[in-house]
Amino acid sequence: MRANEIPTEEIKRAPAAFTDRVTADGRFGRPAEPGRYRLVVSRACPWAHRVVITRRLMGLERVVSLAVTDPRQEIIEGDPHWVFTEETGSPGGRDPVLGIHALREAYLARDPHYTGGVSVPGFVDVDDGHLVSNDFDRLVKDMATEWGALVREGAPDLYPEALRAEIDALSGKIYTDLNNGVYRAGFAPDQEHYDAAVADVFARLDALEEHLSTRRYLVGDSITVADIGLFPTLVRFDAAYHGHFKCNIRKLSEYPVLWAYARDLFQTPGFGDTTNLDHVRTHYYWVHTAINPTRIIAAGPDPRRWLTAHHREELGGGPFGAGTAPGPVPAGERVPDLA
Amino acid sequence: MRANEIPTEEIKRAPAAFTDRVTADGRFGRPAEPGRYRLVVSRACPWAHRVVITRRLMGLERVVSLAVTDPRQEIIEGDPHWVFTEETGSPGGRDPVLGIHALREAYLARDPHYTGGVSVPGFVDVDDGHLVSNDFDRLVKDMATEWGALVREGAPDLYPEALRAEIDALSGKIYTDLNNGVYRAGFAPDQEHYDAAVADVFARLDALEEHLSTRRYLVGDSITVADIGLFPTLVRFDAAYHGHFKCNIRKLSEYPVLWAYARDLFQTPGFGDTTNLDHVRTHYYWVHTAINPTRIIAAGPDPRRWLTAHHREELGGGPFGAGTAPGPVPAGERVPDLA
Repeated sequence: MRANEIPTEEIKRAPAAFTDRVTADGRFGRPAEPGRYRLVVSRACPWAHRVVITRRLMGLERVVSLAVTDPRQEIIEGDPHWVFTEETGSPGGRDPVLGIHALREAYLARDPHYTGGVSVPGFVDVDDGHLVSNDFDRLVKDMATEWGALVREGAPDLYPEALRAEIDALSGKIYTDLNNGVYRAGFAPDQEHYDAAVADVFARLDALEEHLSTRRYLVGDSITVADIGLFPTLVRFDAAYHGHFKCNIRKLSEYPVLWAYARDLFQTPGFGDTTNLDHVRTHYYWVHTAINPTRIIAAGPDPRRWLTAHHREELGGGPFGAGTAPGPVPAGERVPDLA
Repeated sequence: MRANEIPTEEIKRAPAAFTDRVTADGRFGRPAEPGRYRLVVSRACPWAHRVVITRRLMGLERVVSLAVTDPRQEIIEGDPHWVFTEETGSPGGRDPVLGIHALREAYLARDPHYTGGVSVPGFVDVDDGHLVSNDFDRLVKDMATEWGALVREGAPDLYPEALRAEIDALSGKIYTDLNNGVYRAGFAPDQEHYDAAVADVFARLDALEEHLSTRRYLVGDSITVADIGLFPTLVRFDAAYHGHFKCNIRKLSEYPVLWAYARDLFQTPGFGDTTNLDHVRTHYYWVHTAINPTRIIAAGPDPRRWLTAHHREELGGGPFGAGTAPGPVPAGERVPDLA
């Protein structure tokens, strides 16, 4: 995720700059190996959050290490950059494994002439410090299907072959209208673009409210990458998008079904335990000075409401299908407790 | 109301610049007379709204005429000013009665050397075009008690003598924490002042939620100036203060009691029929460029929810005590219908 200035035209998300694929069989050149890769994220970023959830559900925490940047980006050569800081636990302001201060250093290690945007998630080869991929969608799907024997025992099937067409079709609509729609609303260059984006956002939320009223998950009877794609946007909605991006027709918590669906996921291992709403609020309100020049960070709402009962079990299905829940979050990766 | 720049210190509302009093007996120099005074307001401004409500409840619409400015202020000599425009129904961009474009002209007619702020409500003597008072609290109380035989038959007692101490004490707390607290939050110069202001706002809302759980109105068994002071802030809360001023711990609609209380008043003649939420949203989001530089006006929430049932009648009491409801809103003063 990058952007702290209002574009003159409607926001169009650039395609990922680096899209190398890592698989167990190494057929694209880079094999999946324990300890070889490091996932650089911001806890604030919804695109990075998808990969963090997938990594945890698949039990790849022991295989791929995690590096968390400061939610406050730093201006380097005029652009906002994800950096490691003392304040957020990186001694000397450097990632202890990669030795870098700014994620851009991994991009430049990969391509010294690179001048494009730098975004998280950044999947980095520890051996040479090169950025391998910032393609969040591919990273999610590859972690879900291509890491072979490196995934944990009981890892769920997050992208079942029989459901892929349905998952991709629904995820595409959700991406356009909602995941990216909130950004189109927040960074709209004028009232007309804003109005159109907000209409898309709430039309999609309305449709999802209906869709999820009779089923526990988006596609099939258990969690898939479709849910992993929706959750990061929902969990940020009331804390950031509702006010900061002016998506204020309704709060998520005013959609009974969607709010229960989101709480159900939040309370499932891998979702709430990878969510840091302080980083979310801090990042959005602090970084986007073109829409919040004071950098004052809005206080609400109370995150403890995420822990209230949801009763979605009554719809049947189960989070992990034939698989099992992941174990505890590794020490050093825990987010602050809400309770 | 004035302010479009972020102050360097915590916002402190200046006392009213002109405080001449108009009474039936003329003991302060200016007697109440039909047709002699014109009330200049913005539909956006909560302080002006109090006077508009009082005027209507007391049936002074036939006695004091109303002039409504554009919710978009105009920059004149570097400051934002309330003006009359073609777009909002003033032919030639001038008030047809006073002949002025900007309210400041009435201030300058009163005092050619005046250099202070110009705020609504502006109570203007039509005879000489002089600003008489911009003291909203005094205007409310004088209209409620000092206009003698000019008020309508059945006008309620909005400021009963026996309840004045209680009304003033409670209104003072509400003013500090809530009416003005939302401005302290919205225009806070830094995080610390914002945090303190938001805490005040929600502590007061919490206290009011409790206070109003067993009684229909703030003081006594019918509407008083205390309710008239609270309503304009509540009716603007979700549309403006929640997002634009970052008062986002909860929406008003998340307080079951306060939300029902506010809807009860909204549905009482004098309250909803003097509320224009389009002017509210437009004003706040458009004028305060220091906190919303894009001037994009947030879309939500849906105002029709103000018309839903509230069931507050069950608490007993009645809106107008021994008085009666005012009649229909005069032609030419009607706000857009929500239904």
